[in-house]
Amino acid sequence: MQTQKKGTVHSMRNLKLTIAFDGRNYAGFQVQKNALTVSEVFSNAVERVFEGRLPIKGCSRTDSGVHAEGYVLTFHTERNIPVERVVAALNVHLPSDVAVLDCVEVPTDFHARYSAVSKEYVYKIHNSRVRNPFMDRLVLEYGRQLNEQSMHKNAQDFIGTHDFAAFMNKGSPVDSTVRTIFSFDVRRDGDMVELAVKGDGFLYNMVRIMVGTLLNIENGVIKSGTIPDIIGSQNRKNAGDTAPPQGLYLHRVYY
Amino acid sequence: MQTQKKGTVHSMRNLKLTIAFDGRNYAGFQVQKNALTVSEVFSNAVERVFEGRLPIKGCSRTDSGVHAEGYVLTFHTERNIPVERVVAALNVHLPSDVAVLDCVEVPTDFHARYSAVSKEYVYKIHNSRVRNPFMDRLVLEYGRQLNEQSMHKNAQDFIGTHDFAAFMNKGSPVDSTVRTIFSFDVRRDGDMVELAVKGDGFLYNMVRIMVGTLLNIENGVIKSGTIPDIIGSQNRKNAGDTAPPQGLYLHRVYY
Repeated sequence: MQTQKKGTVHSMRNLKLTIAFDGRNYAGFQVQKNALTVSEVFSNAVERVFEGRLPIKGCSRTDSGVHAEGYVLTFHTERNIPVERVVAALNVHLPSDVAVLDCVEVPTDFHARYSAVSKEYVYKIHNSRVRNPFMDRLVLEYGRQLNEQSMHKNAQDFIGTHDFAAFMNKGSPVDSTVRTIFSFDVRRDGDMVELAVKGDGFLYNMVRIMVGTLLNIENGVIKSGTIPDIIGSQNRKNAGDTAPPQGLYLHRVYY
Repeated sequence: MQTQKKGTVHSMRNLKLTIAFDGRNYAGFQVQKNALTVSEVFSNAVERVFEGRLPIKGCSRTDSGVHAEGYVLTFHTERNIPVERVVAALNVHLPSDVAVLDCVEVPTDFHARYSAVSKEYVYKIHNSRVRNPFMDRLVLEYGRQLNEQSMHKNAQDFIGTHDFAAFMNKGSPVDSTVRTIFSFDVRRDGDMVELAVKGDGFLYNMVRIMVGTLLNIENGVIKSGTIPDIIGSQNRKNAGDTAPPQGLYLHRVYY
């Protein structure tokens, strides 16, 4: 019997990994030409540990500069390296701005993207006249005082199943622009204002446009209480700005 | 009477500024040849706002890669720009990893370094098997579980007035190696272990060697309870490693 250098050849396993990454140095997760992506550095680490180039399936595209606290990806392997060792070994080969938090074995047909039932994003705003020098491009710096209670109140109008065509930028074509938002909470902790939104799925730039619309209500460009009208119009022009990517974190994916 | 572009010429003012900086991109505060320092980017911002190269006096040298949450500096100017405007104007001209937090006018003979009565440093350790990808070089990553209670207990042996020759690396000559430590607290908040030390002054690398010694006690290289003996020996060889710079923050200077 041939001995294997790393793990014995075994039946096919599907590994589900939860990773966190600082998006500042990456053009998002997905493979792109001429730009460094998280997928690429992750594939390189997998190649070192599993001695082969394995196809990685991610839970979503993420925009350039967007961060993740709980991004989920899967790959198939026949090697039976124990899951704890997978975590430690991949972390050795990953750059310091990407970390594997967890690894579990899941059924072969589990898919990081298509098996997801909901996702939660958090948008982080440092709301202070003076910027935080330790959080450059890890938060949106916003100097003017925000009223998180009125933001929370307006955000409740996003909840429910709606056609969110007004909250999508032009990108890849989609079958349907109907999505369900389960919760949208705006909280303050000192100088930090965090907007947490959970839904069954999000259109291209949808979270950033929802956040931008709430900020436009705060600065008086959009009238408070008009989010139902904007949704009803199905017209992108009526929604607000697309908030910049640096405040956005893919927080958690639910299965 | 000649009108001035920015502020009217006035009697000499001494401005005391509190700044925060992320030390990752800097070779410390103090001016150095062939290396970018905080002092340099700060002087450039002052030159833009005050239309002249003004000598900046800092509260301490800081090592390359060390951070500050409350670094204090002073400079003299005859321009009577209001202090609030000084904060805002300098922040416009500073890079995003340096921020002016506060500006007050102080007596002409106030000196950021020599008027200080004590300083507080905080050393930040991310104590987890998995690194935090958002805090690369903003903390010391330490995978092995630390016992913050035993660290705190050993740290109490630093308190008091002692000759700290054993806790100084070779650097500029000093008149005396006697310093007084007022408090040394080790606290845990989740995965973060923070060591806060306050004293009337610190020798070259003193905080980092004290932290390194506490870590060496944790990992069994140095025996618990022996800090008084190490201090008494006045021999650098008996103290522990110099902890790396990335965990160190100048937290506050007291006057």
